Amino acid sequence: MPELEYPKQPYSTVKRLNDRARYSLETIHGIINSSPFINVAFQDSTSPFPAVLPMIGQMGSFARPSADLGDVLDLYLHGYVSSRLMNLARTSRDGGETGIPLTMSATILDGYVLSLTPNSHSYNYRSAVLFGYATPVVDQAEKLWAMELVTNSVVPSRYQNTRNPPNGAEMQSTSILKVKIKAGSAKIRSGEPHDDKGDMNDEEVREKTWVGVVPAWTQFGEPVAGSYNRVEKVPGYLEEWRVEGNEERRREAYEAVKEPVKGEEGT
Amino acid sequence: MPELEYPKQPYSTVKRLNDRARYSLETIHGIINSSPFINVAFQDSTSPFPAVLPMIGQMGSFARPSADLGDVLDLYLHGYVSSRLMNLARTSRDGGETGIPLTMSATILDGYVLSLTPNSHSYNYRSAVLFGYATPVVDQAEKLWAMELVTNSVVPSRYQNTRNPPNGAEMQSTSILKVKIKAGSAKIRSGEPHDDKGDMNDEEVREKTWVGVVPAWTQFGEPVAGSYNRVEKVPGYLEEWRVEGNEERRREAYEAVKEPVKGEEGT
Repeated sequence: MPELEYPKQPYSTVKRLNDRARYSLETIHGIINSSPFINVAFQDSTSPFPAVLPMIGQMGSFARPSADLGDVLDLYLHGYVSSRLMNLARTSRDGGETGIPLTMSATILDGYVLSLTPNSHSYNYRSAVLFGYATPVVDQAEKLWAMELVTNSVVPSRYQNTRNPPNGAEMQSTSILKVKIKAGSAKIRSGEPHDDKGDMNDEEVREKTWVGVVPAWTQFGEPVAGSYNRVEKVPGYLEEWRVEGNEERRREAYEAVKEPVKGEEGT
Repeated sequence: MPELEYPKQPYSTVKRLNDRARYSLETIHGIINSSPFINVAFQDSTSPFPAVLPMIGQMGSFARPSADLGDVLDLYLHGYVSSRLMNLARTSRDGGETGIPLTMSATILDGYVLSLTPNSHSYNYRSAVLFGYATPVVDQAEKLWAMELVTNSVVPSRYQNTRNPPNGAEMQSTSILKVKIKAGSAKIRSGEPHDDKGDMNDEEVREKTWVGVVPAWTQFGEPVAGSYNRVEKVPGYLEEWRVEGNEERRREAYEAVKEPVKGEEGT
C-alpha cells in the first residue's frame, strides 16, 4: 500500500523551505507520539489572543487498536482539560463539523546547527502540526482504552504496573478529548550547516569560525523514589524504557547530522 | 523594588490548580528565555484553525539593554517569519493596538512523576504563556541588536565568534518581530508524586507499585564538525556552554523533585 499523506489545505501547506515539508501520516504521527507535550491552540472568542495549553496525548484508533502509525488515526488528548476548552468542545459547531477546531503542534530539537555567519545558523528539528475537531469521549470503554494508551505512551507498561482501572471518581474527574484530524504537516531540518558562497570563499572567516552541529536530545536521569515508595528496586520495565530511550534519542540526534541538508537557509 | 507581576487578564489567568500559577515577570521571562523554541500562535482569518509556528526568540530591552529578567521587556522573534505572519504584522490593527495579536508559549519538561494510579501521574514542568502585539522591527540598529541578542541566546558569544555584522542581503532577508507584551502567566509543577488517601491506604498497591520521579532535561552531546570546518579544536566558549549547560539543566531537574508538591492532581 502506498504511504498515506494528509491533504494539502491552505492552512496546512508549508510555504517556505518546502523541501523540508512532509505530509506523510507516519512521519507526522511519529513526531506527535514521541513528544512529551502537545501544544493545543484554539480560538477563544472572548479574547484577541488564541488560547494555548500544553497537553499530553497520543495518536490511536479505538476501532482498530492494531492500526499502524501510518494509518488514519485520532488524537486522544488527556489531562485536566480546561473547563473553557471542555465546554467549547461539548457545544461547538464549525460549519458542518462537530467539535472545537484545534491546532495541535509538537517540535523535537535534534541539535544546534552552527555555521559561519549568524544568519545561516539553524536547528536540526522535527516539527509537526495537526488540525482537527475535538469532542469529549463519552463512551466509557473508549475512555478507559484511551487512558491506558496515554499512560503507556509516557512509560510503556506503566498502566499495567499501577492500580487500575480508574475508579468511578477518577473516570468522572478525568476528561479525554478525541480529535478527528482534518489535515497536518511536518517540517524537518537535518544535516550539517550550510553557508553562502561569499562566506565559503572567505578564507579568513573559514579559518577562525568553527562550524558544525551540537546534537541534542531529551535525557532521563536516575529515578528518584518518592517518600512513600515501598518498592526497593526500580522496576525493569522502567529502567529498560529509560536507558534504551536515552540511547535511541541520542542516536537519532547524531543520525540527523548525517542526513542531507534540506533547504538553503535557517529555521 | 517589589517583584513585578503581569496583570491578570481574563485570557491570562490560570483557572485550574492555580497554586501552580505564577505571574512574576522574572519567572515567566526565565522560562521563555531558556526554551530553545517558542510556539507562536495567531488567528488566521482565512482558516478555522489558529496558525502555530515554532520560532526562536528572546526577551530583551533595546531601550535599556542592561535590563534584568524581571523588568518590563519585549519579546524579539527571529526567523524566516512566514510571509503570512509578516504581512499580518505589518497591517494588522486590533482595537487601539498596532500589530498582530500573538500567543507565545514554551514548556520545559523537568521529569515524569509516577504515582500509584494512572490518573495521579503527572509531569514536573515549567510552562509559560505570553500575550502581545507583534510588529516588524524596521530600525536597523534595533534589528542588528536583536539579531545579536537571539544568536547569543542559543550559544553565548557565538555572534562575536562568527562573521558579523550581517550584510545588506541578510538584513533584507531576515525579519525580526518585536512583541509588546500585554499579559502572561506561568504554570509550574514540582515535587514528588501525590496520591489520594484511598491508594495510600491500600497496602497491596503500595507494596507492588514503584512511585517516584524520573528527572528529565535537554542534553547536548559532543559537537560534530561540519565537512567544511577548518577549526581543529571545538572552541572553549562552545564547550563551556555545552558542559555547564548540561550540568545546570540536570541539577534543575533533580532540584525540582525536592520542591514541595503544588496542586493535588496531575498536569
